[in-house]
Amino acid sequence: MCRWLTFRGDPTFLEELLFVPEYSLIHQSLRARRGATTTNGDGFGVGWYGEREEPGLFREVLPAWNDSNLRALAHQIRSHLFFAHVRASTGTETMRANCHPFVVGRWMFMHNGQIGQYEKLRRVIDNALPDELYAHRHGTTDSEAIFLHLLANGVEVDPQGAMEKTIRRIEDVAKETGLDSPFRMTTAFSDGQRLYAARYSTDPDPPSLFYRQDEIGTLVVSEPFGADEEGWQPVGPNSFLLCDPDGNVRVQPLTV
Amino acid sequence: MCRWLTFRGDPTFLEELLFVPEYSLIHQSLRARRGATTTNGDGFGVGWYGEREEPGLFREVLPAWNDSNLRALAHQIRSHLFFAHVRASTGTETMRANCHPFVVGRWMFMHNGQIGQYEKLRRVIDNALPDELYAHRHGTTDSEAIFLHLLANGVEVDPQGAMEKTIRRIEDVAKETGLDSPFRMTTAFSDGQRLYAARYSTDPDPPSLFYRQDEIGTLVVSEPFGADEEGWQPVGPNSFLLCDPDGNVRVQPLTV
Amino acid sequence: MCRWLTFRGDPTFLEELLFVPEYSLIHQSLRARRGATTTNGDGFGVGWYGEREEPGLFREVLPAWNDSNLRALAHQIRSHLFFAHVRASTGTETMRANCHPFVVGRWMFMHNGQIGQYEKLRRVIDNALPDELYAHRHGTTDSEAIFLHLLANGVEVDPQGAMEKTIRRIEDVAKETGLDSPFRMTTAFSDGQRLYAARYSTDPDPPSLFYRQDEIGTLVVSEPFGADEEGWQPVGPNSFLLCDPDGNVRVQPLTV
Amino acid sequence: MCRWLTFRGDPTFLEELLFVPEYSLIHQSLRARRGATTTNGDGFGVGWYGEREEPGLFREVLPAWNDSNLRALAHQIRSHLFFAHVRASTGTETMRANCHPFVVGRWMFMHNGQIGQYEKLRRVIDNALPDELYAHRHGTTDSEAIFLHLLANGVEVDPQGAMEKTIRRIEDVAKETGLDSPFRMTTAFSDGQRLYAARYSTDPDPPSLFYRQDEIGTLVVSEPFGADEEGWQPVGPNSFLLCDPDGNVRVQPLTV
Repeated sequence: MCRWLTFRGDPTFLEELLFVPEYSLIHQSLRARRGATTTNGDGFGVGWYGEREEPGLFREVLPAWNDSNLRALAHQIRSHLFFAHVRASTGTETMRANCHPFVVGRWMFMHNGQIGQYEKLRRVIDNALPDELYAHRHGTTDSEAIFLHLLANGVEVDPQGAMEKTIRRIEDVAKETGLDSPFRMTTAFSDGQRLYAARYSTDPDPPSLFYRQDEIGTLVVSEPFGADEEGWQPVGPNSFLLCDPDGNVRVQPLTV
Repeated sequence: MCRWLTFRGDPTFLEELLFVPEYSLIHQSLRARRGATTTNGDGFGVGWYGEREEPGLFREVLPAWNDSNLRALAHQIRSHLFFAHVRASTGTETMRANCHPFVVGRWMFMHNGQIGQYEKLRRVIDNALPDELYAHRHGTTDSEAIFLHLLANGVEVDPQGAMEKTIRRIEDVAKETGLDSPFRMTTAFSDGQRLYAARYSTDPDPPSLFYRQDEIGTLVVSEPFGADEEGWQPVGPNSFLLCDPDGNVRVQPLTV
Repeated sequence: MCRWLTFRGDPTFLEELLFVPEYSLIHQSLRARRGATTTNGDGFGVGWYGEREEPGLFREVLPAWNDSNLRALAHQIRSHLFFAHVRASTGTETMRANCHPFVVGRWMFMHNGQIGQYEKLRRVIDNALPDELYAHRHGTTDSEAIFLHLLANGVEVDPQGAMEKTIRRIEDVAKETGLDSPFRMTTAFSDGQRLYAARYSTDPDPPSLFYRQDEIGTLVVSEPFGADEEGWQPVGPNSFLLCDPDGNVRVQPLTV
Repeated sequence: MCRWLTFRGDPTFLEELLFVPEYSLIHQSLRARRGATTTNGDGFGVGWYGEREEPGLFREVLPAWNDSNLRALAHQIRSHLFFAHVRASTGTETMRANCHPFVVGRWMFMHNGQIGQYEKLRRVIDNALPDELYAHRHGTTDSEAIFLHLLANGVEVDPQGAMEKTIRRIEDVAKETGLDSPFRMTTAFSDGQRLYAARYSTDPDPPSLFYRQDEIGTLVVSEPFGADEEGWQPVGPNSFLLCDPDGNVRVQPLTV
């Protein structure tokens, strides 16, 4: 399990959301309060949309709480749409290619959760990828595989539909393999314009997902932060969240 | 604050003490039960005496709990006298030169604790080092400085006396600077033959120190491990522990 | 292209072969004299058989020429059978999982060379792996894929036959895909008892391979070292080398 | 010896100067054509002035030629004034705190060259630093020490005078110690407004320094790049270069 944050709004220095708030994401890397794991020290990453169509990306295998480069970049870089992720490995190696966010072209993706017994499913899930996306398979995580399936399933045309198809595909594969471990996840993804998030679980126990809106912009997070946790809206199980370029948020059911 | 372990006895695979026991040192890197910090993820190190007079040394800036090299080395390397350390930075950078153990010639040293307000004392503590040892100043920690002072104060001739002189020196420097933050520490050091450890604090609150002896050998640790924590002897405040090559342990008061 | 060395003989400190000789492997990491690339700074690895059936393994993404851990380990570790490798990436990422040697159980493998246009073949080569070996696919290199195919093709029973089947398989896949880039390689592999090496190329231009025998043992290398390069025997193109536990070396043609 | 580049002019993506040109700085990290070392693979760094008074900073211990983070940042970040450096260690460790550029407040500094026999002079050079700057001594290089002396010698008020005093100080220290190894260097430093560079050597053999001006801005480099090396002006030995905010360059003698 991991912790993540995504922001869309007025251009904001990353550090204002990553380091400054009480119980911030960087604090959560050392000591999360919700979620299956307390420590999220198996690498981290930030991705941000700036002057290019494709996002900037900085991923490292060190813990986020003490990385001088992350601190300097977060102090310097300002963006209207960015992702940040602190990783707790569920078994796969700690290497940059297994750190979030993942980027293909202008699409960026990150993830919390786990495909149950993924080590038994990796082969079939990889096999189901189209050839042209297999070249983007750089690591070994379920997260990267979910992203590539999302791209394969038409995220460009219908983001929610692609997410639903991806979930169904993974559930089907698990069933065919005879496994009954639950698939649990939250994800965030974006094309640089719109921000999408999803919360899903096979069983009634999906990882937490929250959002908050204020005059600066919209935050979607795996775990609220701030002294009083005020203003955070929980996103219900099996839901899809869309934040459009004007900052309007819509939450609707996932049909899986 | 950090967690550490040292062993002297029959040649033993490092993994049997670092990974196998319940609440082992590697477990403590992720979740220590005693001590000021829960997570000790700011680098780690192992040092072991083998076929050479000087010890082998492997230090890394990654967390110990998930490092493939540490796992492979601990599975393969067997030693009659070894040190292991997981680090929680008290302010200085996460870099190999700040990771424990430290080695000069055949002497090896590691440390838990803190010189209070060390950032204000570093200059004077460094200044007090003799020229010939300054070349071994590779990092910026109080730990490395304590080690170099220990060498300067005659550890070859009188290990306990050198430790006492070192503590007095640091206490004097702190007093002269007008600071009244406590100096708290446990240390372990060795020349490859004898194993020494010390527990000290200016105030009545030194970090914990324990040892255990069985048919295999002697363990000295900052925090007991094993399912039931059975057989561990606490070392009292302001004490000096000596384990000779026959495995006899003597604990006596530090005269500071 | 990379540079590598393997030794079988009397227990020898790694440093005596890796660091001490003129134009040693570590020197070659900075400045190789033969081979397509001068600098081999994209990670390194050493593997050695010791007291366990499976080998010890230490791989790092840093250049070999300046790594304090490699220096300390090579000074301390002694082995009768060890591999060392310095990497020059031919396109895949610099991450530990892409560094040589690779280990599965007691088998160890390393490689120099390249499957031509591998980025277009990775998918089909991965697809051809049996399920039970896919779990050992941790990186993205052609090297790791060759090793897993070698295991799949019965290296336990017939090492040379497995190597020949593996080469044919890869050549077939390339032909079916319509590519005509040459497959060029040298490899070394071992089960901890016997040492095997192969030199092959589709075209008349395989990477170099040499061996040398003296009273200490047998060296097989991608590039000779020592002041005068004396005593090195070239291994001919499309050859298979076997060194048995008594140190007898046999070189015979590869039948591909 | 290292290779470096600094730019002042219209906001420019770092990659356009670091990666795109023939024989670019990143190419020089693998294969420099001038200078004492061919390979500059012992870490790298970039620093840039953006929206903050103090510069952004990204330093890493890996070689520059193959670092995914550097590539992504250089593609994304645009600046009117930036520094880049690829390092070839002259003896001190490869760690971030020894990588260039160095930053204190809004001042940024980088360096190529060497204080001769620095390992014998480090102590006295460190001792000569004022207390308030010693807190910024994070590594062990001569480069960082030169920077801190430059700050101590009044760079705020008189940049060239401070550089001259710093050189004299180091020369004096070397003489007092009875050493006669030459001190050779090029440096670049900036407060975010003006860009300064210096070329100096005790003996007649200072490292090379060049600059070029075009409609985009001013480049100062240790080694020219571009297919034809056209338009580069050599800076003479023992010279000081100043580039003001309007892009006017003045080169005048260093009076040491």
